[in-house]
Amino acid sequence: MSNRRIVLASRPSGAPTLENFRLEDVPVPTATSDGEFVVKVEYLSVDPYMRGRMSDSRKSYAPPQPLNEVMTGGAVGQVIESRNGKFATGDIVQGQFGWQEYALSTGAGVVKVDPSLAPISTSLGILGMPGLTAYFGLLDVCDPKPGDTVLVSGAAGAVGSYVGQIAKIKGCHVIGIAGTDDKVEHLKHDLKFDEAYNYRTVTNHIEKIRELAPEGIDVYFDNVGGVITDAAILNLRLHARVAICGQISQYNNEKPEMGPRLLSMLIVTRSKIQGLLVTDYAPRFGEGIRQMAQWLKEGKLTYREQFEDGIENAPKAFLNMLKGGNTGKQLVKL
Amino acid sequence: MSNRRIVLASRPSGAPTLENFRLEDVPVPTATSDGEFVVKVEYLSVDPYMRGRMSDSRKSYAPPQPLNEVMTGGAVGQVIESRNGKFATGDIVQGQFGWQEYALSTGAGVVKVDPSLAPISTSLGILGMPGLTAYFGLLDVCDPKPGDTVLVSGAAGAVGSYVGQIAKIKGCHVIGIAGTDDKVEHLKHDLKFDEAYNYRTVTNHIEKIRELAPEGIDVYFDNVGGVITDAAILNLRLHARVAICGQISQYNNEKPEMGPRLLSMLIVTRSKIQGLLVTDYAPRFGEGIRQMAQWLKEGKLTYREQFEDGIENAPKAFLNMLKGGNTGKQLVKL
Repeated sequence: MSNRRIVLASRPSGAPTLENFRLEDVPVPTATSDGEFVVKVEYLSVDPYMRGRMSDSRKSYAPPQPLNEVMTGGAVGQVIESRNGKFATGDIVQGQFGWQEYALSTGAGVVKVDPSLAPISTSLGILGMPGLTAYFGLLDVCDPKPGDTVLVSGAAGAVGSYVGQIAKIKGCHVIGIAGTDDKVEHLKHDLKFDEAYNYRTVTNHIEKIRELAPEGIDVYFDNVGGVITDAAILNLRLHARVAICGQISQYNNEKPEMGPRLLSMLIVTRSKIQGLLVTDYAPRFGEGIRQMAQWLKEGKLTYREQFEDGIENAPKAFLNMLKGGNTGKQLVKL
Repeated sequence: MSNRRIVLASRPSGAPTLENFRLEDVPVPTATSDGEFVVKVEYLSVDPYMRGRMSDSRKSYAPPQPLNEVMTGGAVGQVIESRNGKFATGDIVQGQFGWQEYALSTGAGVVKVDPSLAPISTSLGILGMPGLTAYFGLLDVCDPKPGDTVLVSGAAGAVGSYVGQIAKIKGCHVIGIAGTDDKVEHLKHDLKFDEAYNYRTVTNHIEKIRELAPEGIDVYFDNVGGVITDAAILNLRLHARVAICGQISQYNNEKPEMGPRLLSMLIVTRSKIQGLLVTDYAPRFGEGIRQMAQWLKEGKLTYREQFEDGIENAPKAFLNMLKGGNTGKQLVKL
């Protein structure tokens, strides 16, 4: 029995390709010391932040992914062997197990997943890191009020699709920006966004946002950066709140792209722009999961998942997600 | 007896010049209706925000200065005639009297000045709008904690010089950026800044700020924008706070200048950037003035004023201030 895994073979210059990854076959780990346990992974998560980890030339909130080591990433699976009193064989657990079929863990950063709550794959999506990012990012950084106009970029991705729905729960008028007509339909019809548009068919985002939000926007939840964010900043209302959650349009740049200096607009509107990282909210994760699960149960939240099959397809799933090929949460099913 | 005044003769394209202004002679106003009073102006304020008002092609928080009308601006003087029960002849009053020797007022936005507190010119500086901007901008937007490293740009100007001193009162380590060696000396020796540098003699601001604040900065109070602000953003520590008070390096641009997109840094550091306008704090002005006056009395704050003489020199004083020719508050004495 072998453990197939994906390692980082080389660092990308610009957009990553399949050649930056390598599939390896290694022995399945065993728990040889007290405290250790082995997880058979069922689902892997691929997320935009991993692009940042692939580079070692820029300042980040985390160290770069080492070359020739298993790719970092959240995953969920079942404990198949344990020498840890807190995690028993048969338990479903979620943690940073990486892109591999079997993982050895000491329990650091691992949480048990209740499979009666929702399908266990949701522990990587709406009831996991992306769901918590949306919950705390929107509610804590953006403080949405009933009647506020909320603009979300990357709106059909995991985080964006949850943000828009939470904003609707809070009584906001929600506008989504996504990259295909199908995604726009999904946002409007399945997720009940008030407005949505396909950024690939629009050249003047300033005018488009003004058309959809003639009074301006109170909250902008940013997953993408670049020209869309410029246009959002130029459409802020007084005392608007902007959360910078991701800048996916910029992640492949070796040097910062140039854009218009717009900080004067913050004086005009007395708005704030704030960066967001979900791990800052770790002490409140329980609260976030409980609330998201409750909304899910009440039918106030819905979610979509998109799967690739097999560890060998994790790089493909990742590259597809980076290009916006997913609607909802992109996962790999092992 | 005539009332000399400065009107806006034309709108500048790029940097304003003396030709954009015109000196006029008009009759001294009289209080003809109940509620009116006449002020003989003693000091005029010239401030960076006035550059924004001279243009009519950009979004602002206030309407543009109309052509051929008296230039807007704060001033302080004595009531010489009154049909208003709240303001008696002899009272010292401060308000938006404009660039003129005599002003007719109905009392809107006018406050009485207590000449026993400090020289009345301070009602346009440390005990006026610039002082309140520093007080609320630093304390409310930036939330400085003892031990924080606070960076201030435009540090030898009115607002900047007060910000740095308030930060020192709050137990912070204060670094100022100014435009001459004399100003740097003034910051370090008179105002007790911990560090200061002359931006005109530095080419790599990123390295310079890193040298003066190797651990990074917790608070950046921005009066200037542009490359200095880029460098500050690249030196932020975790959970840093940036107040955008002014962007004087950008005010003469007809279109936004291009600069590197740096919003990703806000995710790395989970920092916020927030725009600031002092008028938002109007309900708390009393608190601000009382505290600033108290600190002044206790010798914890000091200030410098720079005067031009005569209404005919108001444009010159304004242009000089825009170029950074002032240390402390630039005023015109009539």
